[in-house]
Amino acid sequence: MADNLKYYKIKDIPMNIHGRIDTSYDLIPLLSNGHGIEVSVQGSQLWADVEANHENFEPWVAIEINGELISRFMLDKGSHRLCLLRGVSPEQTTRVKLYRELQAMSEDPKTCITIKGLWTDGDFREPPSYDHRFEFIGDSICSGEGTYGARTDMDWTAYCMSYSRTYANLIGKELNAECRVISQGGWGVFSGWNNNRRHVIPDYYEHICGLASGYALSTKGGMLPADDPDIDVAKMSTGDRYGAGRAYDFGSWVPEVIFINLGTNDREGFNQPPFTDPDTGKTYSLRTDPDGSFCREDIELIINAAVGFLKKVRKNNPASHIVWLYGMLGYDLNLTLAEALNRYRTESGDGNVAYLELPSVNDRTIGARSHPGYESHRIVAGILTDYLKTVL
Amino acid sequence: MADNLKYYKIKDIPMNIHGRIDTSYDLIPLLSNGHGIEVSVQGSQLWADVEANHENFEPWVAIEINGELISRFMLDKGSHRLCLLRGVSPEQTTRVKLYRELQAMSEDPKTCITIKGLWTDGDFREPPSYDHRFEFIGDSICSGEGTYGARTDMDWTAYCMSYSRTYANLIGKELNAECRVISQGGWGVFSGWNNNRRHVIPDYYEHICGLASGYALSTKGGMLPADDPDIDVAKMSTGDRYGAGRAYDFGSWVPEVIFINLGTNDREGFNQPPFTDPDTGKTYSLRTDPDGSFCREDIELIINAAVGFLKKVRKNNPASHIVWLYGMLGYDLNLTLAEALNRYRTESGDGNVAYLELPSVNDRTIGARSHPGYESHRIVAGILTDYLKTVL
Amino acid sequence: MADNLKYYKIKDIPMNIHGRIDTSYDLIPLLSNGHGIEVSVQGSQLWADVEANHENFEPWVAIEINGELISRFMLDKGSHRLCLLRGVSPEQTTRVKLYRELQAMSEDPKTCITIKGLWTDGDFREPPSYDHRFEFIGDSICSGEGTYGARTDMDWTAYCMSYSRTYANLIGKELNAECRVISQGGWGVFSGWNNNRRHVIPDYYEHICGLASGYALSTKGGMLPADDPDIDVAKMSTGDRYGAGRAYDFGSWVPEVIFINLGTNDREGFNQPPFTDPDTGKTYSLRTDPDGSFCREDIELIINAAVGFLKKVRKNNPASHIVWLYGMLGYDLNLTLAEALNRYRTESGDGNVAYLELPSVNDRTIGARSHPGYESHRIVAGILTDYLKTVL
Amino acid sequence: MADNLKYYKIKDIPMNIHGRIDTSYDLIPLLSNGHGIEVSVQGSQLWADVEANHENFEPWVAIEINGELISRFMLDKGSHRLCLLRGVSPEQTTRVKLYRELQAMSEDPKTCITIKGLWTDGDFREPPSYDHRFEFIGDSICSGEGTYGARTDMDWTAYCMSYSRTYANLIGKELNAECRVISQGGWGVFSGWNNNRRHVIPDYYEHICGLASGYALSTKGGMLPADDPDIDVAKMSTGDRYGAGRAYDFGSWVPEVIFINLGTNDREGFNQPPFTDPDTGKTYSLRTDPDGSFCREDIELIINAAVGFLKKVRKNNPASHIVWLYGMLGYDLNLTLAEALNRYRTESGDGNVAYLELPSVNDRTIGARSHPGYESHRIVAGILTDYLKTVL
Repeated sequence: MADNLKYYKIKDIPMNIHGRIDTSYDLIPLLSNGHGIEVSVQGSQLWADVEANHENFEPWVAIEINGELISRFMLDKGSHRLCLLRGVSPEQTTRVKLYRELQAMSEDPKTCITIKGLWTDGDFREPPSYDHRFEFIGDSICSGEGTYGARTDMDWTAYCMSYSRTYANLIGKELNAECRVISQGGWGVFSGWNNNRRHVIPDYYEHICGLASGYALSTKGGMLPADDPDIDVAKMSTGDRYGAGRAYDFGSWVPEVIFINLGTNDREGFNQPPFTDPDTGKTYSLRTDPDGSFCREDIELIINAAVGFLKKVRKNNPASHIVWLYGMLGYDLNLTLAEALNRYRTESGDGNVAYLELPSVNDRTIGARSHPGYESHRIVAGILTDYLKTVL
Repeated sequence: MADNLKYYKIKDIPMNIHGRIDTSYDLIPLLSNGHGIEVSVQGSQLWADVEANHENFEPWVAIEINGELISRFMLDKGSHRLCLLRGVSPEQTTRVKLYRELQAMSEDPKTCITIKGLWTDGDFREPPSYDHRFEFIGDSICSGEGTYGARTDMDWTAYCMSYSRTYANLIGKELNAECRVISQGGWGVFSGWNNNRRHVIPDYYEHICGLASGYALSTKGGMLPADDPDIDVAKMSTGDRYGAGRAYDFGSWVPEVIFINLGTNDREGFNQPPFTDPDTGKTYSLRTDPDGSFCREDIELIINAAVGFLKKVRKNNPASHIVWLYGMLGYDLNLTLAEALNRYRTESGDGNVAYLELPSVNDRTIGARSHPGYESHRIVAGILTDYLKTVL
Repeated sequence: MADNLKYYKIKDIPMNIHGRIDTSYDLIPLLSNGHGIEVSVQGSQLWADVEANHENFEPWVAIEINGELISRFMLDKGSHRLCLLRGVSPEQTTRVKLYRELQAMSEDPKTCITIKGLWTDGDFREPPSYDHRFEFIGDSICSGEGTYGARTDMDWTAYCMSYSRTYANLIGKELNAECRVISQGGWGVFSGWNNNRRHVIPDYYEHICGLASGYALSTKGGMLPADDPDIDVAKMSTGDRYGAGRAYDFGSWVPEVIFINLGTNDREGFNQPPFTDPDTGKTYSLRTDPDGSFCREDIELIINAAVGFLKKVRKNNPASHIVWLYGMLGYDLNLTLAEALNRYRTESGDGNVAYLELPSVNDRTIGARSHPGYESHRIVAGILTDYLKTVL
Repeated sequence: MADNLKYYKIKDIPMNIHGRIDTSYDLIPLLSNGHGIEVSVQGSQLWADVEANHENFEPWVAIEINGELISRFMLDKGSHRLCLLRGVSPEQTTRVKLYRELQAMSEDPKTCITIKGLWTDGDFREPPSYDHRFEFIGDSICSGEGTYGARTDMDWTAYCMSYSRTYANLIGKELNAECRVISQGGWGVFSGWNNNRRHVIPDYYEHICGLASGYALSTKGGMLPADDPDIDVAKMSTGDRYGAGRAYDFGSWVPEVIFINLGTNDREGFNQPPFTDPDTGKTYSLRTDPDGSFCREDIELIINAAVGFLKKVRKNNPASHIVWLYGMLGYDLNLTLAEALNRYRTESGDGNVAYLELPSVNDRTIGARSHPGYESHRIVAGILTDYLKTVL
């Protein structure tokens, strides 16, 4: 690193912090997809001191310069001094964004990146401002699963997931919007793809980044108390150590529109064998009738879960327009989800919610792991951008 | 016309007749969009003797040769000897299709084309066969309104409508399917765009081609009796004269899939002033609540109409997969229509129905008269073709 | 036709006349592709009185309304009263263009359309004005051969050709330019595809529309004298009867840019058997060397012809930018044509000429008769539009 | 790194080595764009021990897994243990390619990556085989300048360049071809963009990777002697230290087709001020005539250089089809280059060379630094793939 670089602590840098992050620490933890920092630097170089860790799923990051992706890579365990920018004219002001590609890995309590400070030979300027704020809630689709990798890639690898190629990121660029994602591959609104009923986004929505704090939560349940003498910090997930399990302050960042893209994994449960909860030994499944259709009782469970989640989202976001999305991997539950929306509207009298269906992937738009590929996300980003223009 | 051409009566020609047509006459009446004839001719020329009429909306036709559109034009009043094909090698067998572009014009009782016979210097061969049969029910979108014409064209002209550029035709080509359309611009499932509750497709679905027989029907109502002494034939619509108002034999042509794309005009009623029925003086409207949302009572009316129509369609097509489509011109009624489908499924126990949403037009896909353009129909055809591949 | 329509003679109508046309007659003869009339009419209807004829290749026409193609059809022999527009609001001003799709058929002396007058219930307004003038010289590609028809269509039919889908028309729309085409399928700059050395565009470039007057010319040669007692008018081509064979006044319409797309058929001559001139019995061919390469002496002939044509074009168009295009059906003669351009530039000192290569058709862009399809013309129109933006 | 990983020396690994590389060392130096290694590994992890260095332009690398780009990043100075693959099922065989994105930087003698060995927990299998071999010679376009970065990025940064998004890489994937690139931004066939006549590809074509050895060459000139006592190894470029400046064995890898895309920078010289050679004080320029056209004498210099280069390429590749490409950044020298090809063909009697023009960038296809963007390379890859299908 050149001699003329000067170190800046996080607190001393004007920056945009992307994603729900507890900023009370003297570092920025990137715990989930889309978490990142963004600065405008007038200078020729920019470096970041970061630390990374993981057990099974190494975190990936991406760098955008002036809004274009120029780099994407995994971060290995340990401390790194990353060069984010080099070689531009010193008088030039450049927008640099470093963000996490990999979703919060609820199954890997150690997956973490922390940004501790930045180095530059120049000065920081006011970071870019945005015209809109959108929140995206979802599953593997929102986690960009399949947006990288070959169509033949079927393993569940970290590199197959991204924020960079998801419709959230693409919409953000198109409408100059700040976007936040809360998503977890395989999870649902009532149960996960394998009938695990703990793998549901609603239970974590009110945490700062609950999906990153699975370890402590799985033993304790619920929201992480600020000071719980029973919790062994040594066994805490990295996420918890950085406040991910604490209550999120919804007033701190008010989205104009909230997109919920859940239901794809709930539907999969009808196809999968029952799930036995390892803690309780209890067994869960979704049943089909003899004619192959979904058992109405179980559909009712999904509807109730969706209605409940809508109420929870509304409670925390009184003014946001809420849109339930569905369809990129099949349409089987669309009437179920529409029923949930109708029931929620009737029960709540809340008309500021909508349903929007998205075209399913096909031979030309599919990506790795039989998931929507980049092209599918681009089409969906176009449809949602068109929609947003009618409601904003 | 060359001397070596020989005349063939309709009855003597092996042909595919497209559309719901009463074939008991010695001519083929083209009363609605997609109505047409298709032959395979080994010879260098093919001509058709046709007769056309209209009051306000002149009928348009298109010619496809070997599956490609090569001609499209209006037919003026009177008899015409149309050359459909000329200049190919005599030993060549060519597939020729002549079909009507313009929808049945319920407001113009005289709009009609009749094909009386064909001339060729060669021989007719077996016409092409199809792998599938699909039925499309709808409104102006299915009538291809806006698929021709400039974006600035706002008049309701015959040339703006088509069958050639609709998703029905495009899907037919992609999947080698025979497609039939029953559609009328401005009409709905419960009421027309202007709150006219007679302008609803369900009332005409069981006729052969009821939309072409509006004249007689508006004075008599109901299905056209075979022999009704009170009906003044001189005042009959051309459609009625050719049996369009008679009961359709649903067993004669069984579609694998039926697409219903209705609701767009029903939604428009909430924006329009009340409609006064000229016959009864009664006034009809759809109401919005003070907060601008749709009045629940009126939504109920639409839901009931949709449920009723689903029952009618199912009764007549016990084995067909029914898909309700919606969305190309806005999504406002999608939850209403989904509710109708849910209610129908619950009431009937019939699970062989689905809902599918289609992306709304945008700046790049809009056509004339603020309607979906050709590009919009191409996108929708792709989505529906993908869907069909999963259910066929 | 409605009673309130009024007849206007050609001379009394403000109109754009498209194409090189001798306007000294009291009618407009459409003798070649792109020949047409264009008016702005404030009224609800527009009709045209036309007369058509042909021997082997029936003429086709297209109608554009407000810049969009809405109709395309063949014209049979005889007089026709064509409705061009109907159903628009009377107060609306509509741009209507009627033009010929089919190239001048040098092999069919009778192919002709004449427009004698127009009928409307409204008034004619000033026709649209254009920002640019471009001339396109070429062969079957410029005649739009293959832009209509199925990929399996291999007969040389009139319907396979067009002006509507050629890059000339597309560029015209994109840049609001008036475009003229002088083209003939199978012809070249030195010889036709079959080694017929009379089938060369340069010999006809200085006529008003020489390609339409092949009949008289083939017996007499050269430009048509105004009053030649030896010419039997009864045997004259329709073109000649309308002045097509007379000298063109190049000052009457000065193109900013002239595109010459010739050479594709000259190249074909190397593959074809020798051609015997029926009049002289003399035999012509283009030879390949034993290793399969083109015989240098014959390449010289082509170069000389191209140089000569460039001189002729320049002589008649002193200020126009001239671009030689090549490539849509293979690149084999590109170095030969570039050599011609270089030689012309050296000999003439004229630097206002350029060479531009166009991408060859492929599986996705090919049309009927193994010719460039609509998609190929769209790509080429994009490339040429980009180029024009750099030189205009 | 996990304990079960085993280290393999380069010599012990079955691999494809991409690019002209002196493989006599016990490591693989990646000195230029497209240089890389490719293995098939059956195992869950793959790591590489690499070392990197640079002065001003840090080297960038990319990782493709099963043919898809999944990672792209800069390599800082020093030793790195890079994880290339992690998280796949151990029984899975995965194709992994690690390659250099950044061109040989002739101006930075230290830019280098060396691969010293690989680690895996599995076994190496036979690497993939290819159907074709293509060589691409060029300038910044071939170096992918502008394929990454925002359109507003104007600095000459390492991140703006790539192999991953160039037409070479895209064609390689489409036709399963092994591709090699010899290119340098700003260089030409006769002189560089700034009239520096040392910045010409022909002088380095016969070296293994001469562009990476600029340092020693600029003081010594010519090819690097194997053992030259006067050369101070401490001052040698990294490239030279790895044999880049030595004579290339053309028989070791015979391309079916060689594409030369040069001339774009030679043309720029006419616009630029004269260049003074710092070593000799001599001044060089390309002149325009008073009317703005290129001075014929100077055009002659370019032609001679191109002819000379064709002879050099042919001498070393007797059987390869050679195609000169031009046009992506303007067409101004196309007739000059065609003249060179014609002169070469005449002088050599060699007919196995061709000229092919490529469409210039436009508003939609331009990338960073006013260079062709990814979309432009994709279009060009399509055109060249189509061409290759006709000659292979």
